Formats: sequence, C-alpha cells, structure tokens
Amino acid sequence: MNLELVTIGTELLLGFTVDTNAAFAGQALAGAGVRIARRTTVPDDPGLLRGAIAESLGRTRLVLTTGGLGPTRDDLSKKVVADLLGLPLEFHEEIWTALVERFARMGRKISDRNRCQAEVPRGAVVLPNRWGTAPGLWISGAMGEVIMLPGVPIEMRGLLTQQVLPRLAARAGGLVTRSRTVRTTGIPESTLADRVGAIEDTLAPLTLAYLPGLEGVDLRLTAWDVEPCTADSLLDAVSERLRSELAENAYGTGEDDLAAVLLEECRQRRYTIVVAESCTGGMIGERITAIPGSSDVFLGGVIAYADRLKATFGVSDRILQEQGAVSEGAVRALAETGRQLSGATLAVAVSGIAGPGGGTPEKPVGMVWFGFAGPRGTDAVRYVFPGTRHEIRARAAQFALFRLLRYAKSAGA
Amino acid sequence: MNLELVTIGTELLLGFTVDTNAAFAGQALAGAGVRIARRTTVPDDPGLLRGAIAESLGRTRLVLTTGGLGPTRDDLSKKVVADLLGLPLEFHEEIWTALVERFARMGRKISDRNRCQAEVPRGAVVLPNRWGTAPGLWISGAMGEVIMLPGVPIEMRGLLTQQVLPRLAARAGGLVTRSRTVRTTGIPESTLADRVGAIEDTLAPLTLAYLPGLEGVDLRLTAWDVEPCTADSLLDAVSERLRSELAENAYGTGEDDLAAVLLEECRQRRYTIVVAESCTGGMIGERITAIPGSSDVFLGGVIAYADRLKATFGVSDRILQEQGAVSEGAVRALAETGRQLSGATLAVAVSGIAGPGGGTPEKPVGMVWFGFAGPRGTDAVRYVFPGTRHEIRARAAQFALFRLLRYAKSAGA
Repeated sequence: MNLELVTIGTELLLGFTVDTNAAFAGQALAGAGVRIARRTTVPDDPGLLRGAIAESLGRTRLVLTTGGLGPTRDDLSKKVVADLLGLPLEFHEEIWTALVERFARMGRKISDRNRCQAEVPRGAVVLPNRWGTAPGLWISGAMGEVIMLPGVPIEMRGLLTQQVLPRLAARAGGLVTRSRTVRTTGIPESTLADRVGAIEDTLAPLTLAYLPGLEGVDLRLTAWDVEPCTADSLLDAVSERLRSELAENAYGTGEDDLAAVLLEECRQRRYTIVVAESCTGGMIGERITAIPGSSDVFLGGVIAYADRLKATFGVSDRILQEQGAVSEGAVRALAETGRQLSGATLAVAVSGIAGPGGGTPEKPVGMVWFGFAGPRGTDAVRYVFPGTRHEIRARAAQFALFRLLRYAKSAGA
Repeated sequence: MNLELVTIGTELLLGFTVDTNAAFAGQALAGAGVRIARRTTVPDDPGLLRGAIAESLGRTRLVLTTGGLGPTRDDLSKKVVADLLGLPLEFHEEIWTALVERFARMGRKISDRNRCQAEVPRGAVVLPNRWGTAPGLWISGAMGEVIMLPGVPIEMRGLLTQQVLPRLAARAGGLVTRSRTVRTTGIPESTLADRVGAIEDTLAPLTLAYLPGLEGVDLRLTAWDVEPCTADSLLDAVSERLRSELAENAYGTGEDDLAAVLLEECRQRRYTIVVAESCTGGMIGERITAIPGSSDVFLGGVIAYADRLKATFGVSDRILQEQGAVSEGAVRALAETGRQLSGATLAVAVSGIAGPGGGTPEKPVGMVWFGFAGPRGTDAVRYVFPGTRHEIRARAAQFALFRLLRYAKSAGA
C-alpha cells in the first residue's frame, strides 16, 4: 500500500526546521507495511498547498499531511483540505469543551483564536491528541482520503503511532519492512566492526547499518519486504547473536536508554545511587531523572562546579593544590563524600576538561576522571573523549553511566 | 527567483536518513535571493524521478536535485534527466582522468563501474567536486534547467556554496530573502499573538512565523525578495519593535540561549549563582554549564531528588510533613541553604511533579514550585506546565532561568 506525504511549512523550505517528522513517518509507516511513494513540502500558502494535495490525491488517493493545524494565523491547511474535498467545516462542541478544560487545568484562559481548532470538516474522523491542542483528522471525500496531523513532533508521533498506524496496518495486510536496533557503548566503531564481522557475513536477507552517535554506536538490522512474523523471528535471532557477542557493550535494543538499564539493575539489587558532577554540570542527574520512577534508586547529588564547592563536598585543599580539580584524588574524594552525605549504596563522580579552553599538555581538552565509591571501596578511571564541549560532556555522561552499571554488577553489596 | 528542489533516495522516504541537505539548501538559497517553491522527495526509481522533475520544470523551469550521482546501480538520475531534456550522454576524458588520479592518490584501483561518472549530458556545465568523485552538473534544455548535485552532505554543501550560489545570485539580481528570529519565553503562544497582533498587521513586506518549542516561542521575521540593505534595516526595525513590546519575555535573537543571557547579566553585575534541583534533576546545571566560560558565574549546586537529600540540604522535617516536598516551604529552604552552602549571590530551587505518576488533585502533574534567594530576601512562585515528563522538566528549567534572570535584574546586590 502506498501513500504520499505532504509536509506543510514555509520554515521547512527556508531550512530553519529540519524535517524530522518525515523520517519518523517513513520508518513507522514501513513497519506497518505502507510505503511513502513521494514526499512533497509546500509553504504555508493555501493555493500551493491545495495544488500539491490535489496532485498527490490524483496519484495515490491517500495523503498524510503534517503541520498547519495550530491556532495562529499561518495555519490554514484544514480549510484548504475541506474546500478541496467539498466539505463544510463544522464546529464541534466536545472538542471545544476539551480544549477549554485543557487550558483550565493549566490555569490559563482560552483565547477566541483557539476556536478554529474545534472546527472539523463534515464526516471527518477526529483523532484525539493527548499531547497538544489540535486533534488529528481523517478526512474522506470523492477525491480520496487526507489524514492531517499537527507538525509538533511529539504530537505528530503520538497520533501517527496510536491512531493512524493501527488503521493503516489493518488495511495493508501484507509484507512489511522492519528494523531492530542493538545499542552499544564503550567500544569504538572500528573495534565493533571487527567483533561483529563474522556475524555480518551471514546476515542475508537482513542488512546491517552502523549508526555512530554521542551515546555509542547503534547497530540497525533491517528485514526488507517480508511477512511480519518472518521479519520478527529473523530480527530476534540476529539481534540475540549480536548481543551475545558484544556482551556488556550491547546494553539494549530499540530506544533503550542506558540510564534506564542502570536503574533496573540497581532496583533489582536494592541499590541506591548518588552523583557528584563537575564538568558534566548536572547532565548525569538529568539523564537518570529523565526516566520515570527513578526516585526509588536515585537519591540526587551535588554539582561541584567551582573549586569552592568541590572543597565543600570533600576535596581537600591539598588535593586541589597538588593534583588539581581534574584528578584521581578529586573524583575519589567527591565520590566518597557524595556516598557518605546521602547514604547511597553507590556513588559516581566526574571531573574533566570539557573545553573549548582550559586544556594543557598534561590535561588536554576531553580528559575526564571518573570515580566510583561503593561498599567494596573506591575506584577511579581516566578517559579522553573527542569532540566539541557538548560532545565531550555527553560522551562523559554516557561513559559514567556505563561504568557505573559495570561497577553495580560487581559491587557485591 | 524560484526553484524547486527534488531530493532523490529511497532511504530518505524510508526515514533512515534525515534530509539535512534540504534544510541547508533552503537557508543557503534564501540568503542568495532564491526561494525554494516546493520540495519533492522521490525514490530511486527512474519513472517516478522523471515524472517529478518534469512536473517541477513545468512549474518553475529551474530544478535543483540532490542524490543519485554515485557509481552504484541505484544511481540513475543523470540518465533520466538527459533523456527528459533530449540530450545524449557524452564520455568526458578529462573527468575520467581526474577520477583515475583521485583513486590512485588514495591507493585504490578504479572500477569500470565508475565510468558512468565521467558521462555528461551534451552541453552541460561540469561543476568540479573537490570533496568526492561525482561532479555536479548544470544541464540546460528546452524544458528548462536542472542543477544536479551529489547527495553526500559535504559534497552537496561544497558544490552548492562554491559553484551554484554565485551563479544563481548573479542571476537573481541582488534581491534576497533574509530572516531574523526573536526568542521569547514565559508567555503562551495565544497571549503572544494577542500582544504582537497590532505589530503583525503592519508588517508587510515582512512575514511573521510562530515557532513554539520547549524553551518558548520563537518569532521568525522574514523579508522576502528585497535588496540586501533593505532586508537588514527592515529586520532591525521590526525585531526592535517586537523586543520592545515584549520586554523581558523577548530575551534574545537568533540562536541566543537564555542560559548565556543570564550568565552575561550576572557577569556584568559580578553575581554568582547556585542551583538546588529536584524534579529537573540536574537539567538547569546542565543548561548553564553547556555555555563555555560559565565557571566565572556558576558555582554548582545540589540535586535534592529524594526527600532524604532535601533534608540534608535544608528542608526541615516539619516542612516535609506539613507542606510536602513539592511546596513553597521546600523551595524557599532549598534556595536559602544552597546560597549559604556556596556563598553565591543568587540561588534558584525547583521542586515539582514531573509525572507521569505522582499527581494529586491538589498537586497535579506539571505543578512546579520555584524558589529564589538573594541579598534582598527570598521569593517563591508556582507554575503548572503542560506536556510529557520531558516537556514539563524542560519547560520548568527554562522558566527557572527566565525568572532567575528577572530576579538578578532586581536583586540590587
């Protein structure tokens, strides 16, 4: 089954927004057996939008649009589609009531400007939007069907996944293209390629792609145009082989977050954790607390950014003078103090040179010390990360979580 | 001047590649006075590609394509365009020689498969590619002109900037399309629209787009098809009017980060700052330390996530029992303790319900308390944010920075 995607927004054409919705929709639709035959991007211009949708309907009779459903005056697409399909817009009292309530819950007064968000082309299916104010719409007319989703990524993704894909998959009923991602960290791409080389040679009909990022290298397996159950069993088997070969470096699949894996490991062992961050400035705490339910494992910690606060949190003047703020002594002291202060089972401390300034021949930009304190004593390790300030910090945060997970598995508390 | 962009690649439609080329081309072309009227993405399929290019030429007579110029078998686009424009492909000995030499320099033997890369439609201008093997092509025929660039981002960007833009700018005759973004926060989109409505009605020839995000709403002004100096003076004047109307809610322009604005304000006043974070879990510290040079203002802080650590950092048992961890009392105590502990001029504390669980009728998900401590005493404010856990946290972090900036301006230390 084919459809055409029409993404709406002058800002997309001007290049101020990268069209990540289009990539998400491509993957999600392929997984449901629907192929995007063509993608068209048009500006917020009623005439051009009408022309593009009419042409797409002429080719495929099924069009998905993103964007142009908000309350501001550049959002005109709903009216364009209703006109094109010859349907009047009707005000839906229950959408309006839900909007008013949503605003009230946030303690805000709704504006008349929002009334247009409660207008629906006659006969359209309203797709409830739990993530924002504008519902999605599935509009049918003599020329074909137009599925309209808002452009805000989280709203578009939620509506596509929960409302659109089940309806389309039921209709498509055939071959699918599915992918599975095995997430790795703590191992460079070239070493990874050496270790999975033997598996890679026997993959057909699957393909394997290396996707390096700040949290490590994702390995993406894809099964192309196969029966859904064949796809799943092939992907299951090969992803298991990869995980077994890569052991602790393969920490999860799909969208798994290393922080969630760490929290689950600690939860099972009834460990609690605390952080003491310098160069990451709160990033490790942020990563951990991004996971819902982290509070049963994560107690909190300290951001010891200035030397004054490093001293407050256990780094002696002698260590600061003799070894400096980025040193084995500093991270050992921070981890131990963090653990004592909070009573946590495990502590991780991080201090490094994130750059762009501040590097020296002995302590170059990218050098980071990590300290780990637990019931069996304290450990420290040094690592040098490449990249910009942001990349160094993100890589250091991921490495801290990776090594804390290893430390948790061997802590023997 | 208008052109249409046609990006070629099955992997773009499947969503495995995000089309960053399209965003780059949009910005670069607008700055040279050329507008992308429409963007079309088609798979590596000769028939569909031919149809899309023919339609685009019918509308604008000028088409830019990216992708489909490499040596692999799915790269057929050059032949498609030559056929469409009725031009024979001719083998260019000098392109072949340059390719052979390039391969030799890298110690590789060239394959016959690469011969097609030396074929050029009759009369086409060859655009030399310093970044890869496939040259760009500027092909003219009775239907119009097609500019073909490779899809590899570094090659596409290099060729566009150095070979294509100068030729197009000369033809566009000096008129350009330029944008300026005014960044706002702490004000909902509909209220913003009401406040700038009067300015919006008098904007022509500029247009205004609302770009809501987790850090607030960006207002992007665009001057279309005007003289370069007119563009700049119009954008200067209107962005100043917007900033003046929106006062403190308009914290910057372009890529300005609120954390950097806050740091600069504090730097000028010789203030230092400290954070005490609960529901944001380190996100505010992370935002601030993402800015290079933040260490002269930012001392650090505490992540008081569990009640145990809130007690360690100044929240009395009585406050925890009577008001709870998410309360005015808690954020006042955390801010004051953070300030005392660090000796900072100003402290901000945040405690809230980020969800998805943990909400009650009195304290719903999204409710966040903010405390501010400084030389003139302590302040607290409550706000309810919409969205997912991530959105609530990101909005709360931005709000904390926003209110800390306001507090710094009136702290009178």
